[in-house]
Amino acid sequence: MNLQPLISDLDLRRATMCQLLHWLAVERVRPQGLAEVYEEAIERFNPTLNAYVGLSSALLQEQSLAAEHRRRDGVIGRLDGIPVAIKDNFDVAGWPTGAGLLGRRRPVAEDAHVVTRLRASGALLVGKTNMDEGALGAVTDNPHHGATHNPHRHGYTAGGSSGGAAAAVAAGLAVAAVGSDSLGSIRIPASYCGVYALKPTHGEISTRGMLPAARRLDTVGLLARSADDLTVLLQVLAGYDADDPRSRRRRVALAPPDWEPGRLRAGFLPSLEDVGVKPEVSAVFEAALAKWPHELGERRTVDFSDWDFARTRRAGLLLMEAEMLATYAPDLANTEHRVSEGFRRLLSYAAGKSAADYAAADRVLDVATLKMRRLFAQIDVLVLPTTPQGAFPLDGPVPDSQGDLTSFASLAGCPAVSIPMGYLPDGMPIGLQLVGARGSDLRLLELASICAATLDVEPAFPAIH
Amino acid sequence: MNLQPLISDLDLRRATMCQLLHWLAVERVRPQGLAEVYEEAIERFNPTLNAYVGLSSALLQEQSLAAEHRRRDGVIGRLDGIPVAIKDNFDVAGWPTGAGLLGRRRPVAEDAHVVTRLRASGALLVGKTNMDEGALGAVTDNPHHGATHNPHRHGYTAGGSSGGAAAAVAAGLAVAAVGSDSLGSIRIPASYCGVYALKPTHGEISTRGMLPAARRLDTVGLLARSADDLTVLLQVLAGYDADDPRSRRRRVALAPPDWEPGRLRAGFLPSLEDVGVKPEVSAVFEAALAKWPHELGERRTVDFSDWDFARTRRAGLLLMEAEMLATYAPDLANTEHRVSEGFRRLLSYAAGKSAADYAAADRVLDVATLKMRRLFAQIDVLVLPTTPQGAFPLDGPVPDSQGDLTSFASLAGCPAVSIPMGYLPDGMPIGLQLVGARGSDLRLLELASICAATLDVEPAFPAIH
Repeated sequence: MNLQPLISDLDLRRATMCQLLHWLAVERVRPQGLAEVYEEAIERFNPTLNAYVGLSSALLQEQSLAAEHRRRDGVIGRLDGIPVAIKDNFDVAGWPTGAGLLGRRRPVAEDAHVVTRLRASGALLVGKTNMDEGALGAVTDNPHHGATHNPHRHGYTAGGSSGGAAAAVAAGLAVAAVGSDSLGSIRIPASYCGVYALKPTHGEISTRGMLPAARRLDTVGLLARSADDLTVLLQVLAGYDADDPRSRRRRVALAPPDWEPGRLRAGFLPSLEDVGVKPEVSAVFEAALAKWPHELGERRTVDFSDWDFARTRRAGLLLMEAEMLATYAPDLANTEHRVSEGFRRLLSYAAGKSAADYAAADRVLDVATLKMRRLFAQIDVLVLPTTPQGAFPLDGPVPDSQGDLTSFASLAGCPAVSIPMGYLPDGMPIGLQLVGARGSDLRLLELASICAATLDVEPAFPAIH
Repeated sequence: MNLQPLISDLDLRRATMCQLLHWLAVERVRPQGLAEVYEEAIERFNPTLNAYVGLSSALLQEQSLAAEHRRRDGVIGRLDGIPVAIKDNFDVAGWPTGAGLLGRRRPVAEDAHVVTRLRASGALLVGKTNMDEGALGAVTDNPHHGATHNPHRHGYTAGGSSGGAAAAVAAGLAVAAVGSDSLGSIRIPASYCGVYALKPTHGEISTRGMLPAARRLDTVGLLARSADDLTVLLQVLAGYDADDPRSRRRRVALAPPDWEPGRLRAGFLPSLEDVGVKPEVSAVFEAALAKWPHELGERRTVDFSDWDFARTRRAGLLLMEAEMLATYAPDLANTEHRVSEGFRRLLSYAAGKSAADYAAADRVLDVATLKMRRLFAQIDVLVLPTTPQGAFPLDGPVPDSQGDLTSFASLAGCPAVSIPMGYLPDGMPIGLQLVGARGSDLRLLELASICAATLDVEPAFPAIH
């Protein structure tokens, strides 16, 4: 019973994961058919997009065949048959974990925790996606693997560091993707590429098997085509992992949303200009806010006057750079030019910093954590653009404000969701960010789902050339 | 109705806190009377012992008068009328927080979290106790305030860094004391002075208002004259503090003991000699073990072969020294010799370390945390001496192994209790340590209570000269 012809390949490539799970369930599409569509699209478009740096069609076919058998036997997982992409800083057994560097070519023996969970859920691992070297950057113009292009416009950045993952999801080369987000690495490319992203509460999804950038900030981020997709992914991937020292044992296993419609306290920044948001982004934000459902409760302007963005971000970066000096010590020591000069230069800032500087920076984050805790005693959600600007040309200058609006959720360990909020005058997408208190991930996702329905942004499936 | 004459001053000075609470409740002693006994003893013995570096009899009298009034009015706290000592690295409003340094003379404005809780419980703050400079050390031979002497033998160390606090409790100059324990600073002096100590699970008692040594290791430690006293103190002081970034929100508010008598899995080290325990300490330990109640379940030898004690401790020390460079930067910058050369030298190790070294050391502790987590999947409690040796002469060499047996519970965030296990051939006391999994504090204390009853060590109230 193959009814596949009823759904076009393009529909299969832009459908949400929940939609595809439904189609798979009612047998309007079969796992092998779905995998073939994605494989064909990757073959056709990846050479232009450069979203994937590691692919194996043999492995994909093998997995989709196994999915067929499971479905025939009636024993399927929650994501059974869904093609998912993995950022190249996660371990996948049998593949090298490149992390955007050249030197790491040896296949690893074990799956990262999230990969184990994905496999157990029946998801199909499509391949490994391009990223900034060592996840340090937000452009995905990799010195070894080349740039990932924005599916909405060739020659434009897809954002980073999970640029390959976001481009794959946006262009219909993966249904969802798993990346990392330490200061915004999953949300920035989601904003630029017009997809949905969740950076969960720190410790919510185990980071075991992910190359550490800064353990205090590192989270496993998720990319998908709807808020509901993110919810399903989170529920499959979250949970305590005794083998991850940063894993968090919850008091309640994923707190259900506890805000009442009509009573939500939504916080807004007093001025977007003051935090460097470009006027055209503010315009889209204001237009989105005009649609903000009033039934959702009151709006409050929050006071960030005592929040030193620059100092806090600098502290977070120091942690990241110092940890990466530790993580990539073998790569840095290698003389065969396996690490670019640019990466070396980025890390050199930390090389001049002392252990006491690290401790002081870590304390700055303690203060930031407390401030956010106090903020979320007054509001339920903070609403702001995901990025101060949209995607920019790969051959132009790189704005250094890219992570300004994403980093502070990271610095305080809070969850954040990015959803498409509209298009900039140049036609490129831009994201709306919702930030919540630690542990409020499901609440945020429910709210994101409501907001997405309200905003009703034209689905951002790009024409790829 | 003053029946005080029935109980001798010495009895009041060596009674447990629970006993005193009973006597206060049945009015066999009154708060003012009790305070006077302690005040008098302090006046008489502190000049010799040098346990306190800050005292105010006027304030103690004021507090005991207030306690009288509360008792008259029938509205009393859980520790009402109990004289408690505070280590000098905790903020007490109106007092300077010296932390064993000379420069910090300005009175602070706010109480530390634990001090607030103690006051709210009706405890009387007796004074602030001597410690190693900046809590870095385990001898309490302070270059500015002089040495605290062991109440069991003048000229011997009381241990450290909470030496003043332990000496005060042992000598009957305080019923209980609050100190800090980052690598053993409460357990080491408890072992040397023959008193009971609890280093709780990391994050269990808020460290707000305590000068940080290493936030990842810092805990508020408790000293008292019985395990039950420690249980009461813990219940008064523990709990989530939203203003402490390291405070831990529990799934269950203090898990009740969940081991069954007869099913306890007690772990022992394969060799005490290998971890540097002196033969005379091993002999006392073996004698104590001979009394170990068999009804308590099975004994298991644990495998610590892959635990690199030296490397792990070095990592913890680096964190501590680096953080202290940050904490004491103003003191170090001061040119008026407010910091001893010895302290400066101790911190100089960290001065040569980089931010990446800090990150690497922090990761070593992550590994240690996981190892302990795995260990406590196999056993319920680890049993070992608290210190490799007993108190030593203040004018002799300082063994560098003092913290070897206490530090690894700290490095993994686990709770540990020290109880007196007997006396060494030279007549000095020595402690038995019980280490448990994170969050098992109450279980450990219950077990400590059973062990103490089994060991039945002659109460270690010393003759002070």
